[in-house]
Amino acid sequence: MMLLHVTDVDEASWAESFRKTLAPYPVVRRGDDFDPADVRYIFVWKPQADAFDGLTGLEVILSRGAGVDALLQHPRLPDVPIVRFVDEDLSQRMSDYVVAHVTMHHRQYTRFHRDQQARRWSQYYPPAASETTVGIMGMGVLGQDAVRRLKPLGFSLRSWSRTPKAIEGIECFAGDEGFEPFLGGTDVLVNLLPLTPDTTGILNTDTFSKLRRGHFEGGPVVINAARGGHQREADIVKALTDGTLGAASLDVFETEPLPQSSPLWDIENCYITPHIAAISDEKSGVRYFTDIVREHQAGRPLINVVDRSRGY
Amino acid sequence: MMLLHVTDVDEASWAESFRKTLAPYPVVRRGDDFDPADVRYIFVWKPQADAFDGLTGLEVILSRGAGVDALLQHPRLPDVPIVRFVDEDLSQRMSDYVVAHVTMHHRQYTRFHRDQQARRWSQYYPPAASETTVGIMGMGVLGQDAVRRLKPLGFSLRSWSRTPKAIEGIECFAGDEGFEPFLGGTDVLVNLLPLTPDTTGILNTDTFSKLRRGHFEGGPVVINAARGGHQREADIVKALTDGTLGAASLDVFETEPLPQSSPLWDIENCYITPHIAAISDEKSGVRYFTDIVREHQAGRPLINVVDRSRGY
Ligand SMILES: NC(=O)c1ccc[n+]([C@@H]2O[C@H](COP(=O)([O-])OP(=O)(O)OC[C@H]3O[C@@H](n4cnc5c(N)ncnc54)[C@H](OP(=O)(O)O)[C@@H]3O)[C@@H](O)[C@H]2O)c1
Ligand SMILES: NC(=O)c1ccc[n+]([C@@H]2O[C@H](COP(=O)([O-])OP(=O)(O)OC[C@H]3O[C@@H](n4cnc5c(N)ncnc54)[C@H](OP(=O)(O)O)[C@@H]3O)[C@@H](O)[C@H]2O)c1
Repeated sequence: MMLLHVTDVDEASWAESFRKTLAPYPVVRRGDDFDPADVRYIFVWKPQADAFDGLTGLEVILSRGAGVDALLQHPRLPDVPIVRFVDEDLSQRMSDYVVAHVTMHHRQYTRFHRDQQARRWSQYYPPAASETTVGIMGMGVLGQDAVRRLKPLGFSLRSWSRTPKAIEGIECFAGDEGFEPFLGGTDVLVNLLPLTPDTTGILNTDTFSKLRRGHFEGGPVVINAARGGHQREADIVKALTDGTLGAASLDVFETEPLPQSSPLWDIENCYITPHIAAISDEKSGVRYFTDIVREHQAGRPLINVVDRSRGY
Repeated sequence: MMLLHVTDVDEASWAESFRKTLAPYPVVRRGDDFDPADVRYIFVWKPQADAFDGLTGLEVILSRGAGVDALLQHPRLPDVPIVRFVDEDLSQRMSDYVVAHVTMHHRQYTRFHRDQQARRWSQYYPPAASETTVGIMGMGVLGQDAVRRLKPLGFSLRSWSRTPKAIEGIECFAGDEGFEPFLGGTDVLVNLLPLTPDTTGILNTDTFSKLRRGHFEGGPVVINAARGGHQREADIVKALTDGTLGAASLDVFETEPLPQSSPLWDIENCYITPHIAAISDEKSGVRYFTDIVREHQAGRPLINVVDRSRGY
């Protein structure tokens, strides 16, 4: 039996879809009449404290999110494998966001907007893409898709990950010792890391001050499309106003929705989107988790299982 | 002998470069001591009325610009081949501009900016790139490079040209009869046409009203990176304010610099850049025209010759 426990999402609609695709396998929701001991799979998003209570026969947790940082904080998380959402459509949408913001900053949007507001005709020719280095933090599913989209555009690319990588046409850095050299040649920093104890608050004053300076017109740029917990917003406010950063694009925030009182709203070189970079679409989600359940039932190994010791 | 006649550009610097690359072939500037009858090649940009006077031995006109619309209007233009500038670096820069503006509009920059100004957290998930159709007018050197960059990003693409084309993965339209069907499926219209009598003023109310409506959030978008003469600015102002267009990115204008009095400056969904989409870089320009002169001297056929009857 599969149990749905998703918050802030149309649970009824997902349940209806799963019932169709998994039939005759039983799919239930909270409130339905079922024996918790019969639940083998639980599909979760923002689970409540009692979400897993009584699920004595649970075999797999299915996470609607690609990131599992919040789920891993759950106080009574059972010790069974967690399969996270990994999806081509999600990656495509994330790359859409990343490419749009990288290219907008590369083409000096902030500068030209200021000129327009002042009715100033001031010709500045942005460098060719190849003269601008985009540094991507996190070279997992999303980081690699971003590379695949940015490369044909001609950007110089570099990456930073926990373990070393070899990717054609990319300068790859890894681990603590690789962080400073990575930052030192980066003009536009893109964060696609998972949120773990190691990566919490990584977008801070110290990091910003190590980005390449004097190369990219207007100053280095930061784009955060991963998690609000990665960024120190007070540091971002400071860096955007004192010139340490030329601009920032933020899709995620320490507190979401971003509070009315946040100074970020008013900073003209800060580009805010309301956590919409990439959504887990119902259609592809249902397709993906249906396959996961079917494969698991057929005795085949699970894919995209979270490594709890790494935290992602 | 090669004569330089370029305005608004550092002519001395170009001359010095050409002298190095063409040596021992003589390179002169206006004001130098030479016999006009000895000039075989003239390298021009915004030539004055008397630019070609006395050049009785002229064999080729070398145009620093990729577009030759202004040159073809010259009242005393000699009847010799005109070679225009075609360059990978120029194409790359133009595609940088096109991709930045297409993706910014695709990701609903205008909407999110309005929300930010109102401190409004309003989640809207932009469509995947594949659900958005970019229609490119002009499928020459620049249009084809734009396709090459936009295709790996996943956009649906269609093109419009004078003569029919077959390009993999692109829906190709041609000629007058193809124009309406082309517009009818286009969400983001990109203009990369040359300016000719046929294309003058093509970005007008009638054209805008034929773009696909009710599909792309906020309304269809126009991006003009070709020539100011392609657009009717009064029509653009109207379309941007009455909702016929959701946004416009304009790099070129009927009058340049754009006059202080233009209402375009103040329209928040109009994105103005001061004719900087793509520049003819001195280094690649000198390399390109040096090759042209050398090949021509060796008796080989000229490339990228303008067809005066077509006007481009
Ligand atoms: N804003 C949104 O709408 C949205 C949507 C979806 C996902 N996300 C976020 O995006 C994150 C990344 O997703 P993904 O699917 O690409 O994850 P993934 O496949 O697990 O990749 C994670 C990458 O980060 C690297 N990494 C982890 N810890 C590190 C550390 N301490 N130092 C350096 N590198 C480290 C990993 O290195 P190794 O390769 O060496 O393991 C890996 O390359 C998710 O966790 C989620 O939080 C945001
Ligand atoms: N803003 C800037 O910084 C900047 C920089 C460089 C260039 N430009 C402009 O960009 C323009 C295009 O450059 P390019 O090198 O790509 O030119 P190109 O190679 O000559 O290509 C022109 C394209 O437009 C099509 N075309 C011409 N007249 C047409 C008509 N009446 N109806 C439909 N299609 C028509 C042609 O169709 P066929 O293929 O059928 O011949 C061809 O596909 C230049 O002329 C210049 O004005 C602007």
